[in-house]
Amino acid sequence: MKQQSIGVIDSGVGGLTVARELMRQLPKESFIYLGDTRRCPYGPRSEEEVRAFTWQMVNYLLAKNIKMLVVACNTATAYTLAELQDELEIPVVGVIDPGARAAIKFSNNKRIGVIGTEGTIKSKAYPKALMSIDQSIRVNDLACPSFVPMVEEGILSGPEAEGIVARTLQPLKAMNHIDTLILGCTHYPLIKDLVQNEMGDHIQVISSGEETAREASFMLAYHKMLEKSKEPPVYEFYTTGDVEKFRIIANSWFDDPVEIVRLVELEHVQSTAY
Amino acid sequence: MKQQSIGVIDSGVGGLTVARELMRQLPKESFIYLGDTRRCPYGPRSEEEVRAFTWQMVNYLLAKNIKMLVVACNTATAYTLAELQDELEIPVVGVIDPGARAAIKFSNNKRIGVIGTEGTIKSKAYPKALMSIDQSIRVNDLACPSFVPMVEEGILSGPEAEGIVARTLQPLKAMNHIDTLILGCTHYPLIKDLVQNEMGDHIQVISSGEETAREASFMLAYHKMLEKSKEPPVYEFYTTGDVEKFRIIANSWFDDPVEIVRLVELEHVQSTAY
Repeated sequence: MKQQSIGVIDSGVGGLTVARELMRQLPKESFIYLGDTRRCPYGPRSEEEVRAFTWQMVNYLLAKNIKMLVVACNTATAYTLAELQDELEIPVVGVIDPGARAAIKFSNNKRIGVIGTEGTIKSKAYPKALMSIDQSIRVNDLACPSFVPMVEEGILSGPEAEGIVARTLQPLKAMNHIDTLILGCTHYPLIKDLVQNEMGDHIQVISSGEETAREASFMLAYHKMLEKSKEPPVYEFYTTGDVEKFRIIANSWFDDPVEIVRLVELEHVQSTAY
Repeated sequence: MKQQSIGVIDSGVGGLTVARELMRQLPKESFIYLGDTRRCPYGPRSEEEVRAFTWQMVNYLLAKNIKMLVVACNTATAYTLAELQDELEIPVVGVIDPGARAAIKFSNNKRIGVIGTEGTIKSKAYPKALMSIDQSIRVNDLACPSFVPMVEEGILSGPEAEGIVARTLQPLKAMNHIDTLILGCTHYPLIKDLVQNEMGDHIQVISSGEETAREASFMLAYHKMLEKSKEPPVYEFYTTGDVEKFRIIANSWFDDPVEIVRLVELEHVQSTAY
């Protein structure tokens, strides 16, 4: 039987950090990554639009016979995860709850920080996820609009990056209450060290991507779907936007070269559940 | 509707550390803990006997209408987890794989240490769990037979405890390769700080109990079974052995007092799946 891949969808390139973690924690598995870079970002779009776009990505990957779906986009997770879990016959893992559960595990004082894009912070998706488990948790959240452009421009270290990070995190640092900080945006793992340095060693910094990969690993084992073949895994990358731009970013974020990136048009793919 | 509890079974008192973590990470949930202290330890027993004893515990708790089962015993997990997951209609989480997955997430150099009882180390349950996910992982495991008696006698700090821990871990330390260490026994979280101090800050020490609670939290959310009631949770404790001894240990390990411990006889409970 042909190996089945795990599908990873995102509004753009951010989910590549989740894919990278999935590949690291599940080295036998094959992956298909699909980033809707042409219509990125999803944050400012309506729920209806995000649902339609997400279903187009999902249906495109279902046709490729994926065995599990990872929604590596905070906005798509917030709007569609419950629906996808209900409708699909394969396991579906989203990107918000794993970070929330890891934070609850790590935090001793129950004061948890969350940083993310304006859309994610405004949605209150992380506070909701945290408080659905433990109502006594106090959340300090902060939108960091300058981080995504900085990361996409490749500014990942040095005085400029340090300055931006220090300035942006200042309000969170000033409160000095939290003992755990969730990186609630898939771009942020690339500046995790900067954030850790700025916040200090006493703060546990949690990458949603790492935690999502961990739970995907659990899901796969639980459903007895771990790859048993000794064949090397296959990684496929698809984008709806500029192939070359995607390839350059992917190559700067991954240790192994990403050679083939394919263009895909989603406009004609069905935008609802089958 | 009456709140349904999560069942936690163990061969004795060790699983109380897992229960404690479950209560911390899932503060709205009610729990029933059952420790087979009279027939403890399971390690030296035959697979057939461990399976029969485990099924007795499981059937006893199923009659109490539990919504999820956590097998907080390494030996019972190794012998019965797959069978329980197949036979039961409720989700079942074991205590070995969560620690393995957490170690894979944390380790950068793919050299992972495991400490446990002689039975657990001899069973190779952790190396098998680790290598089923990533064959390139190298495992250094070490039986620490002096740790369980030490913990049960309440020697959790001070020069004597430090001496025992230092002497026992010496072979692992001498190799100086691992970057991650799994506490592969439910008693060990009580001496986590001692182990961490002895191994050094560069080693990530992983408590199987914390990781099991984290995955149980995921399982519960995935099956949409998180408790929604605002009623305070109910904790029930059962033992097959000395009630007073159980109560003393439970009280020394828990922050909140454990007042009522009930005696249960399992000999007449069915020892196979229904």
